[in-house]
Amino acid sequence: MNFSSKLIEQAVSAFATLPGIGKKSALRLVLHLVKQEPAFTEQFAKAVLDMRRNIQTCTVCHNISDSPVCNICGDARRDHSVICVVESIRDIMAIEETAQYRGLYHVLGGVISPIEGIGPQELNIDALVSRVSEGEAKEIIMAISPTIEGETTIFYISKKLKNLDVNVSTIARGVAFGGELEYADEVTLGRSIVARVPYRVNE
Amino acid sequence: MNFSSKLIEQAVSAFATLPGIGKKSALRLVLHLVKQEPAFTEQFAKAVLDMRRNIQTCTVCHNISDSPVCNICGDARRDHSVICVVESIRDIMAIEETAQYRGLYHVLGGVISPIEGIGPQELNIDALVSRVSEGEAKEIIMAISPTIEGETTIFYISKKLKNLDVNVSTIARGVAFGGELEYADEVTLGRSIVARVPYRVNE
Repeated sequence: MNFSSKLIEQAVSAFATLPGIGKKSALRLVLHLVKQEPAFTEQFAKAVLDMRRNIQTCTVCHNISDSPVCNICGDARRDHSVICVVESIRDIMAIEETAQYRGLYHVLGGVISPIEGIGPQELNIDALVSRVSEGEAKEIIMAISPTIEGETTIFYISKKLKNLDVNVSTIARGVAFGGELEYADEVTLGRSIVARVPYRVNE
Repeated sequence: MNFSSKLIEQAVSAFATLPGIGKKSALRLVLHLVKQEPAFTEQFAKAVLDMRRNIQTCTVCHNISDSPVCNICGDARRDHSVICVVESIRDIMAIEETAQYRGLYHVLGGVISPIEGIGPQELNIDALVSRVSEGEAKEIIMAISPTIEGETTIFYISKKLKNLDVNVSTIARGVAFGGELEYADEVTLGRSIVARVPYRVNE
């Protein structure tokens, strides 16, 4: 594209380095900023810079945090006897959205994947084991994607936790609520028949 | 969304003020920045701030510019006898992309629209008239959208330029190249029959 302005070109390139933003969208964003008052861009940049300069990782659960211990770990009203193990920060947000869980979390930072060169050492597994050995947790819920890598990770972690006084569970897998049976993939459908549960009539 | 971090929340809100970016996309962008080195965000913010702090409007044509006179107006190799009148900066970029035009531009900043409260005074029309009266321009090309507002604007400007020694033209309108006739709207199709041009055999 011909911008006839180095400043515009550099700002467009900056936006275009972000995921899912191409040159055309980047240009739209930059021209939007040009149309607004300069204060608008100052505020935008301040919010982004403040975030990146001050964001921390929770020393307990590895969630992103504004302080050394995150809001969730620091909340005495939450159930500290349950730890939900997730791959990423986004999974915490997704689970928090459901408002169905009041325990703590532990972010692994990924799953074991020999193909991508991610071994157990690259993940926050040792931190989880030492956290569990401190004794407060009674149950560990594995909320890991049901992929081959995910299953491997669950297997590895549960072996590490075997000698500790803690129950390990996984989130329920099966046909999604509201999903049509005929569109469920065959592995999911097959497993949900094998892992069928007794039907209870609510009276 | 539950971010468990004020810093993340503020950065997400900042991105979500930009056009076409919702809360979910904004979160994806922010988490991308968190994953990168802090220097990445510093560079991003610098490019955006530099642009907004230093961008100017060309005093001749009202294009965006890094200097008081833009690259196009300052280019002696371009044809200074033709001025192409456009609504916005984006139109200049689109025309420059075609590489079919080597004259100058004039950005109106919109079109006359009584409904939206935009009168001739809100647009850079007086500046165009005084620019033309200086005498260098021999032709004014109206590259304005063929809408009712656009036609009104062309009519208004051409009346203003009537007593000056300058030819006024509009860009060709008709069925788009590569377009299927049956999908052209009826106004375009009707007008392209009325405004038909003699066919010349290239020998």
